[in-house]
Amino acid sequence: MWPGTPLTRLLGIRYPILQAPMANGPSTPELAAAVSDAGALGSLGFGFLPPEAVREGILAIRRRTDRPFGVNLFVPQELPRADPAEALALLDPFREELGIERTTVGRPPAVTFEDAVAVVLEERPAVFSFTFGTLSGDVVSALKENAVTVLGTATTVSEGEELERLGVDAVVAQSSEAGGHRGTFAADLETAMIGGMALIPQLVDRLGVPVVVAGGIMDGRGIVAALVLGAAGVQLGTAFLACPESGAHPAHKRAVLEGGDQSTVVTRAFTGKPARGFRNRLVRELEGHADRLAPFPVQAFASADVREEAAKQGEPELMTMLAGQGVGLARSLPAGELVATLAAEAEETLRRLAS
Amino acid sequence: MWPGTPLTRLLGIRYPILQAPMANGPSTPELAAAVSDAGALGSLGFGFLPPEAVREGILAIRRRTDRPFGVNLFVPQELPRADPAEALALLDPFREELGIERTTVGRPPAVTFEDAVAVVLEERPAVFSFTFGTLSGDVVSALKENAVTVLGTATTVSEGEELERLGVDAVVAQSSEAGGHRGTFAADLETAMIGGMALIPQLVDRLGVPVVVAGGIMDGRGIVAALVLGAAGVQLGTAFLACPESGAHPAHKRAVLEGGDQSTVVTRAFTGKPARGFRNRLVRELEGHADRLAPFPVQAFASADVREEAAKQGEPELMTMLAGQGVGLARSLPAGELVATLAAEAEETLRRLAS
Repeated sequence: MWPGTPLTRLLGIRYPILQAPMANGPSTPELAAAVSDAGALGSLGFGFLPPEAVREGILAIRRRTDRPFGVNLFVPQELPRADPAEALALLDPFREELGIERTTVGRPPAVTFEDAVAVVLEERPAVFSFTFGTLSGDVVSALKENAVTVLGTATTVSEGEELERLGVDAVVAQSSEAGGHRGTFAADLETAMIGGMALIPQLVDRLGVPVVVAGGIMDGRGIVAALVLGAAGVQLGTAFLACPESGAHPAHKRAVLEGGDQSTVVTRAFTGKPARGFRNRLVRELEGHADRLAPFPVQAFASADVREEAAKQGEPELMTMLAGQGVGLARSLPAGELVATLAAEAEETLRRLAS
Repeated sequence: MWPGTPLTRLLGIRYPILQAPMANGPSTPELAAAVSDAGALGSLGFGFLPPEAVREGILAIRRRTDRPFGVNLFVPQELPRADPAEALALLDPFREELGIERTTVGRPPAVTFEDAVAVVLEERPAVFSFTFGTLSGDVVSALKENAVTVLGTATTVSEGEELERLGVDAVVAQSSEAGGHRGTFAADLETAMIGGMALIPQLVDRLGVPVVVAGGIMDGRGIVAALVLGAAGVQLGTAFLACPESGAHPAHKRAVLEGGDQSTVVTRAFTGKPARGFRNRLVRELEGHADRLAPFPVQAFASADVREEAAKQGEPELMTMLAGQGVGLARSLPAGELVATLAAEAEETLRRLAS
């Protein structure tokens, strides 16, 4: 049922299932290791974290598993010179509600991408993936020469083609269903919100490298459907959010498990970059003043104190609450059990089809 | 390979494939008859057309086929009291460009929905479907008592549940990939833009009636993927747009066949109701003044002269150009041949999976 495919051989895994590298909380070394141990590809997302954090994270996974895993970084963005005053003022009522004073806004970190990549080149995880843009060809070549498999993130056919020309080993296609930040880097947000049923076949028809699909996949039905559409594999984020090994806030996990009644939207409220999450009160109120939000990542820094204090107080309405459109199907199984369940469901789906 | 299913028996068809009732041009009696003759369900969309047009359309299909077919109406909307002055003014530069004078704005037709339904009850097509809302339970009962199978259109799980409570025989689930007007009636547009990979499994898990999926499905891969996700059948619109029997404008058909480079967006520019179509110049310029567009259907009347003159002059940048996100996969086969091809592709996809 799970014969080796070019993708599983490339990644050194049994099932063509990847755990999404949900940066800034949900992805943990424990989650990545449990997923990899179960025969899928665990991963850890570092966002813009400094190189020492990347090394620590890689070593923490290695202490837990000797299976292949992935490491993900955000491609550095041009830092906007934006005055966060308006964004800060919008958040003052929430500060009052939470009982905190406005703090000095943190500054975007000095760009440490090259240093973080240097750590990846030294530590050589099996897989390196990136989102929010493209890399220099030199970085891609260096990674590949060091036996690191390179995956880039695309949200449109032309972004996928650009990544293939860059030399990536596989493309992660992020469809509009996906939770978290949009990886769009060469299209406007609106035309790049393409549902998987339309994106996957158009992308696989144009690319030579394997396509891994992310967005709305929560169970064996979604996995087989993606493979039917031509995907070589799938990447699941929201499906792993409520696992015990996930670092998501308990209130976030509860919301995910009650997700049937929740609606998700793509919003700039959390960080300034469009991201899919629950439309909690923070989102609803800030979306009403979308023109006053600061650009990414300034918005993230301007709102960090509110979101962090809300997390401390367990207030889901004011926390960062990212999730994809499949959230109504989320489960709280231990990650290894979830991987085994997904594989068994996919097998069962195929068996039913064949009969 | 195509054993009878509850849905195919309900609709009296061989393949669980429906041709979308693309109102106001693309759907024609010729298209519906060709699709039905080939073993799928053809349909004709009447929008808000008067009862005599509905009767003529039904008779025109009957002259061409004795197979079952569907008839679709827009559920009447509360008519807004809106001054179209601003919407009209926005369009004046296009009038100048096309060399026409501003004409008196047509008025929304007196509501003829009950009369149109009366014709449906007399003529009894095999299938009646509706979009933009719900019907009264009495109308649904009357249709079913007259052996007309009733399909309602939903874009969210709760809309599907509402339609099931109303007593429809099946629900057409319109995912965010779909071209044309959004059928959303009990949710806000943004949270109701749900991709098929997420919408289908969540909907079928909650509904007892069969779910037919519309949105982004263009070939055998899409059909099998939808069935894998739990759909009982599929509805394709954009896939039929470029067929010779389609009434779409030749320039629209050309754009559809060159669709790989085109981007679609959901816009109120054409009619005032959100609809997915190409981002042509009309859309780009009107979207820049979204707050000055008139509500549906006033915007449609305010812009009709421009869009119709553009069609006469063959100017795709100023015409109504609806299409779904799968447009890059469109083909120009005769409709009957397309149905046979879709069925063969789906069989081949299943055969490959089973091996």
